[in-house]
Amino acid sequence: PARKFKKVVEAAKSIKQLGQDDPRRVIHCLKVGLALTLVSLLYYCKPLYEVFGDTGIWAVLTVVMVLEFTVGATISKGLNRGFATLFAGALAIGTEYFSRLFDRKAEPIVLGVLLFFLATTSSFTRFIPRIKARYDYGVMIFILTFSLVSVSGYRTENLLEMAHHRLSTIAIGGATCIIMSVFVCPVWAGKDLHNLTASNLEKLANYLEGFGGEYFQADPDHEEEGITITASKDDKALLQGYKSVLNSKNTEESLANFARWEPGHGGFHFRHPWNQYLKIGALARQCAHLIEVLDGYINSDIQPPPEIRNKIRESSTKMCLELSQALRALVSSIKTMTDPSAADPHVKCSKTSINDLKIALEAASELENVDLLAIIPIASVASILTEIAKCVERISELVH
Amino acid sequence: PARKFKKVVEAAKSIKQLGQDDPRRVIHCLKVGLALTLVSLLYYCKPLYEVFGDTGIWAVLTVVMVLEFTVGATISKGLNRGFATLFAGALAIGTEYFSRLFDRKAEPIVLGVLLFFLATTSSFTRFIPRIKARYDYGVMIFILTFSLVSVSGYRTENLLEMAHHRLSTIAIGGATCIIMSVFVCPVWAGKDLHNLTASNLEKLANYLEGFGGEYFQADPDHEEEGITITASKDDKALLQGYKSVLNSKNTEESLANFARWEPGHGGFHFRHPWNQYLKIGALARQCAHLIEVLDGYINSDIQPPPEIRNKIRESSTKMCLELSQALRALVSSIKTMTDPSAADPHVKCSKTSINDLKIALEAASELENVDLLAIIPIASVASILTEIAKCVERISELVH
Repeated sequence: PARKFKKVVEAAKSIKQLGQDDPRRVIHCLKVGLALTLVSLLYYCKPLYEVFGDTGIWAVLTVVMVLEFTVGATISKGLNRGFATLFAGALAIGTEYFSRLFDRKAEPIVLGVLLFFLATTSSFTRFIPRIKARYDYGVMIFILTFSLVSVSGYRTENLLEMAHHRLSTIAIGGATCIIMSVFVCPVWAGKDLHNLTASNLEKLANYLEGFGGEYFQADPDHEEEGITITASKDDKALLQGYKSVLNSKNTEESLANFARWEPGHGGFHFRHPWNQYLKIGALARQCAHLIEVLDGYINSDIQPPPEIRNKIRESSTKMCLELSQALRALVSSIKTMTDPSAADPHVKCSKTSINDLKIALEAASELENVDLLAIIPIASVASILTEIAKCVERISELVH
Repeated sequence: PARKFKKVVEAAKSIKQLGQDDPRRVIHCLKVGLALTLVSLLYYCKPLYEVFGDTGIWAVLTVVMVLEFTVGATISKGLNRGFATLFAGALAIGTEYFSRLFDRKAEPIVLGVLLFFLATTSSFTRFIPRIKARYDYGVMIFILTFSLVSVSGYRTENLLEMAHHRLSTIAIGGATCIIMSVFVCPVWAGKDLHNLTASNLEKLANYLEGFGGEYFQADPDHEEEGITITASKDDKALLQGYKSVLNSKNTEESLANFARWEPGHGGFHFRHPWNQYLKIGALARQCAHLIEVLDGYINSDIQPPPEIRNKIRESSTKMCLELSQALRALVSSIKTMTDPSAADPHVKCSKTSINDLKIALEAASELENVDLLAIIPIASVASILTEIAKCVERISELVH
């Protein structure tokens, strides 16, 4: 029982943490509750109920389905739902009137065949990558509405009135969601994407800054004293930040997808070049791949002898520093949306330090009594740093 | 107009290609059409309509929402929907009877407060990662059903009968979906995951096999004759296959998630260790990261001089070959689900060739007139190959 109690306490703590990490989550939940309570007035208020009747339930349904965390997702779902309903509803009513040309017994057969044909073809469009990315929900609602209207139309007399009521309640639900998400503490997917890009570059900068210290200054003497070990515990967590960059592709793509639906907001206009963010993201991931390999050398069993390490320590740490400073300058220029020319000198410096590094390596190889095999890891580290430098340069070009 | 026509033809071709790439997609669409037509009989058949009435529409709704491409996804959605509806329905009816204890004017207020509270708290659970991964749809349906029943219950007299009908039609819809997906040309998420893992390892093997040829045998004499260039065009496409492994994480995780819901099927039992696939996938991605860096060296401007290349060509190509053969043996053992001991000798051989490679490198460095800088790229390649060998070894341990 004590164990179970502990588990419950831990779970409660982690849930509290979720809310503290991003208070917008709590606000989102309150928004969902508020929107639902608002549309339920369609039922609870007698005057409203007399107008819409039981179709008011579609407003509730729409709110639950459409209200999403970010503005872009809500607008995309809302518009998808609205247009799909409109289009499918019109088509279904047309089908219905068409089928009534036949006699009552043939009607279900005609309707069934048309339903089968339409459901099959529109399901297939959901496999087309471009439609899947942007209109998947719309196509689903299209199939849903078409089947609902065409099937239930068979037993309904005043079809047009039903369609009219349903459409207006869905519009009410959708409008509630969109107004809620845009005007009450909005969460912009575009801004999130912007921040994500900046924070990913920052994580890379953190790693590069820390790498010099980890790899080159890990002096055996110090380690025995236990100084570096204790000091680097927090650093280690900071260093591992780059790992989340490796798998950021899907998050970035979905945010960019939602961002395209968003109206202009604080600094971003409607057709902001969201694709640029995806390109920067791809380069950041490439950098992270290189860092992943670099990280393998820190934890490798084969460590280069100190005398070689000392030879190239200066130039390598300088290069790491310049690269991380270049990235940091880019990050701050992204954050403030200003000209990123502050990064240029650092990018230049890192280029010159490529040459310094080469000279240092050559000097190291001329040391006596040095096994070539001992140099290999260091040489690889150097060449990967060079590759990272190229990546950073291209990122800085893109930010411009 | 000719241009537009061309575009349409191209679009049609790419759509046809979608179907040809995976004919199961076409079958899936036919299944959707069939299932919809079947449940619409609830409306079209008079005896059935007399039993269920207008609630038959919920069966249609359920089919559109629940029937997914893979069996696992369908079962997971179906069960989520079923249990969420049952639980939320019961709770909503309880709420309804509770609110009727108050007088008619206070009723909507009590209902509204409870709805707000429940919607807010259950929306929040959707942010908890574990619930999001497996029960996100269930929680949404829970909110949906609870609001629908509690809101519409205010205006309905025979609440229990309505709930009973709705639940049974949802059960009919859900059962239709599950039966359709399990018995009519099933698409198993587990099998897909299995195949994906095998094909990812195969792509890595393809790369390693091709890499030796690309990097070491690219003799300038041959290139002038244009032989290697024409021969390597198909190879290039094959080589680039590893890129898709880099971003396979999300696909693998969602497939594993769905696979957990699936009953036993051909060779896989119910609690098949799907997590092992995720672990193998993580190692395969690590390998792919290394290969990504390796690939940078093929396209690098700085190419090592031929005499050094020749020195280590033999041991490197041998190592690449052994690694790719080890991977291939693992792939075929995964495919046939047999003991992967056929891979062991290759893994061993690749270990011994690590040493050969070291010796070859040392020999290369003792050549006269050789600049150390020229060796660096080769040395890096060698050390990355060594890392890949370690990765492959760990994969082979996991497959066992």
